[in-house]
Amino acid sequence: MKKLILSSIFCLLCSACITVTAQNADSLTIKRIFSDALTDTTSYHNLRNLTGHYSARLAGSAQSLKAVKWAEQVLKNMGLDTVWLQECRVRHWDRGEKETGKVISVKAGNHNLSICALGGSVPTAVKGLTAKVVEVKDYDELKKLGREKVNGKIVFINHPADPALYITFAAYGGVAGYRVHGAVQAAYYGAVAMIDRSSTTSHDNFPHTGIQHYADTVNKIPALSVSTNDADKLSRWLKTDPDLNLFLKTSCSELPEITSHNIIGEIRGTEHPEEIIAFGGHLDCWDICQGAHDDGAGVVQTIDILRIFKSVNLKPKHTIRVIVYMDEEMEQRGAKAYAEAAKGRKHIAAIEADRGGFTPWGFSIDASNEQVKKVQSWKNLLLPYGLFYFEKGGSGVDIHDLKSQDVPLFGLVPDSQRYFDYHHSVNDSFDKINIRELQLGTATIAALVYLIDQYGL
Amino acid sequence: MKKLILSSIFCLLCSACITVTAQNADSLTIKRIFSDALTDTTSYHNLRNLTGHYSARLAGSAQSLKAVKWAEQVLKNMGLDTVWLQECRVRHWDRGEKETGKVISVKAGNHNLSICALGGSVPTAVKGLTAKVVEVKDYDELKKLGREKVNGKIVFINHPADPALYITFAAYGGVAGYRVHGAVQAAYYGAVAMIDRSSTTSHDNFPHTGIQHYADTVNKIPALSVSTNDADKLSRWLKTDPDLNLFLKTSCSELPEITSHNIIGEIRGTEHPEEIIAFGGHLDCWDICQGAHDDGAGVVQTIDILRIFKSVNLKPKHTIRVIVYMDEEMEQRGAKAYAEAAKGRKHIAAIEADRGGFTPWGFSIDASNEQVKKVQSWKNLLLPYGLFYFEKGGSGVDIHDLKSQDVPLFGLVPDSQRYFDYHHSVNDSFDKINIRELQLGTATIAALVYLIDQYGL
Repeated sequence: MKKLILSSIFCLLCSACITVTAQNADSLTIKRIFSDALTDTTSYHNLRNLTGHYSARLAGSAQSLKAVKWAEQVLKNMGLDTVWLQECRVRHWDRGEKETGKVISVKAGNHNLSICALGGSVPTAVKGLTAKVVEVKDYDELKKLGREKVNGKIVFINHPADPALYITFAAYGGVAGYRVHGAVQAAYYGAVAMIDRSSTTSHDNFPHTGIQHYADTVNKIPALSVSTNDADKLSRWLKTDPDLNLFLKTSCSELPEITSHNIIGEIRGTEHPEEIIAFGGHLDCWDICQGAHDDGAGVVQTIDILRIFKSVNLKPKHTIRVIVYMDEEMEQRGAKAYAEAAKGRKHIAAIEADRGGFTPWGFSIDASNEQVKKVQSWKNLLLPYGLFYFEKGGSGVDIHDLKSQDVPLFGLVPDSQRYFDYHHSVNDSFDKINIRELQLGTATIAALVYLIDQYGL
Repeated sequence: MKKLILSSIFCLLCSACITVTAQNADSLTIKRIFSDALTDTTSYHNLRNLTGHYSARLAGSAQSLKAVKWAEQVLKNMGLDTVWLQECRVRHWDRGEKETGKVISVKAGNHNLSICALGGSVPTAVKGLTAKVVEVKDYDELKKLGREKVNGKIVFINHPADPALYITFAAYGGVAGYRVHGAVQAAYYGAVAMIDRSSTTSHDNFPHTGIQHYADTVNKIPALSVSTNDADKLSRWLKTDPDLNLFLKTSCSELPEITSHNIIGEIRGTEHPEEIIAFGGHLDCWDICQGAHDDGAGVVQTIDILRIFKSVNLKPKHTIRVIVYMDEEMEQRGAKAYAEAAKGRKHIAAIEADRGGFTPWGFSIDASNEQVKKVQSWKNLLLPYGLFYFEKGGSGVDIHDLKSQDVPLFGLVPDSQRYFDYHHSVNDSFDKINIRELQLGTATIAALVYLIDQYGL
């Protein structure tokens, strides 16, 4: 018995020793990953090039096709094992000329609005449209007004995002639905157009665009976004003159679909090349911005993970793969093409970076409780880098379709406070990127990829 | 026995109930604090006024005296129980005319350097000085060169801050000593001036100033800071032409000391008015910037705590007090005056906000292990606001002198990644402030003040 006890203690100590040694080795490797990321400027320069030369790269646009060639060349220059393009058909919606929004009122004065069409919107008539405006805060108010008071008018949905919510994605989530479905709701009551207060807690002067959807059951009416400052002003002018007129002119068009591509690059695994750890961001961005945080950052970060593995001489056991997705903003056609092609292949994890290049907190994890616990067991290795967040939650729309294939999904979670100041607006430009924050996001994903490669899920 | 067990269980449940109820009440109060902070813009507007009208408010300057009046008026307008000024004598060092730094070399060309005098530096001769330059990375290299190679020359200390360090304060800590003591070390070997690479990981074009100290044992020589980009260039030019000349001209002067003030405001406690929870930031800033993050942010945040307590109708049991400190940057004379006057008064906690207005992580705590544990027991109440950091560590130089009076000290710890991009340079301006990040810092301190007021330490 004594011997058994001693032997048990010995075993315990022994396994503790192994654990400590492994933790130390992991800790050193993760330190090398962070040091490499923080001292290298490749991803920052990649982002400068991408945003400088290929801004406004909405799926279907000429800019997006040039950006595909750019991304392919960046990956080809890295000396990876394989780089290839994966075809996907994408919509080609085009904004046309810059939109006009003009308040016309004897009592409230004439004023230009800072306004833009929402993604996928139909145009106004060539000469524009002029109509009175009804302001509502939500669909309940719209319903109360009913067809009688809405018919023939422009519905102005003025629902401010709630600044009191700590996580800005929650504030955004509370209002983005008005952008996406507002035109359908307004058209149901006979509205001739819908303008939505921009989906941001920020008080600024530029419209924030984004996708909106039509339904087959009602008329397709022009759908636009107005800057938050101008939404406040319009609301005041409507109090002065409820009968003011608003002139709107947009010339958007839906052109024939075209062929575009995801861009994929990988380093093959030394032990399990058939098993894949995938990570990526999306190359497309809205046509009114550079797409620096959304999602140029995610693209250059996930590309840079492959550079880091080479730079610190980590030879992954499993294949590690970057996917530069096409068309996140409109219809996720790239994501669907990738998920379709992935059937029958084994992905042991997929990670998405699409919440801006800010100081990382950790990951939102869409996986089993056991897998979440496994990741949480690595917390002590990551806390020295401010990474404290490893919780069950959604990942991202580009990897979401892999869920039906039982792939554990991860979304990089950065600090969210500034994201919606920039999101889908001209303010999402390269000068809003802090190099250290960007690099830390890269290192954070690289560290997770390393741990998954070492210990699985 | 059965009864006893049941009764014990009952007691346990009961105390658990009380704990849960208290936690819920605290959780709701903290939510109200954060909601109020995130929806109110007072502190942001205060900071816009302070930085817009009273930039360059170095202790002793005319601007600093105007800023004192501004802060006094802000506090007086808040309807506090007491507002008063606390006298302190401060140095009056003046930069004089903008500095000149010029490389003169046939081989390397003539180039202006982006350069400024360090705080407290003596001037060059009126006509400036011209000398050859020796570049060193550290004091070991300086020692190796010795008097023979240093005498009569300008010592250029070119020690880059280490970007690989995650916490930028660690990177800064690794190089700031060269700024503070470099002139003494250089003068010891006969140097005629010292120029230091700016103490930042950032690669930028503006010099970052800061205090430097002389010793009585060696000559006082002009001490300057050069931008990191120009430090890199100067280093390259010195490789091309080791004999190049550098012309330096500064006209700083040390004027007679003047009287200045801390500004203090408080809400008296309802149960223990004689016991004080103090918090503050420093009003003075370097004379080449607006001092938005350092430390206008800390000033408006800690002032705003009193507004929040009134706004959400919290009546503190203990007196809560804001101290707007004078002269953190040079000699901490305000801090010393406050600590001296505090003797015999009971401070149950002191909190300093002086690391920039960025997304808060939590607090660095200079207190007993038991007190740190008590604060950590509140973690679950604060984690919903991204506050995960409650660790033993230094607080801040303005409250540090209260340590000898056994006061538990707290330093607000925000994300540090961007701080040294701005620190002590013209880049520390109001446009670098994000309103939400600023407000979250305020709410974080207010929540801690509330918990200390409720439960003590």
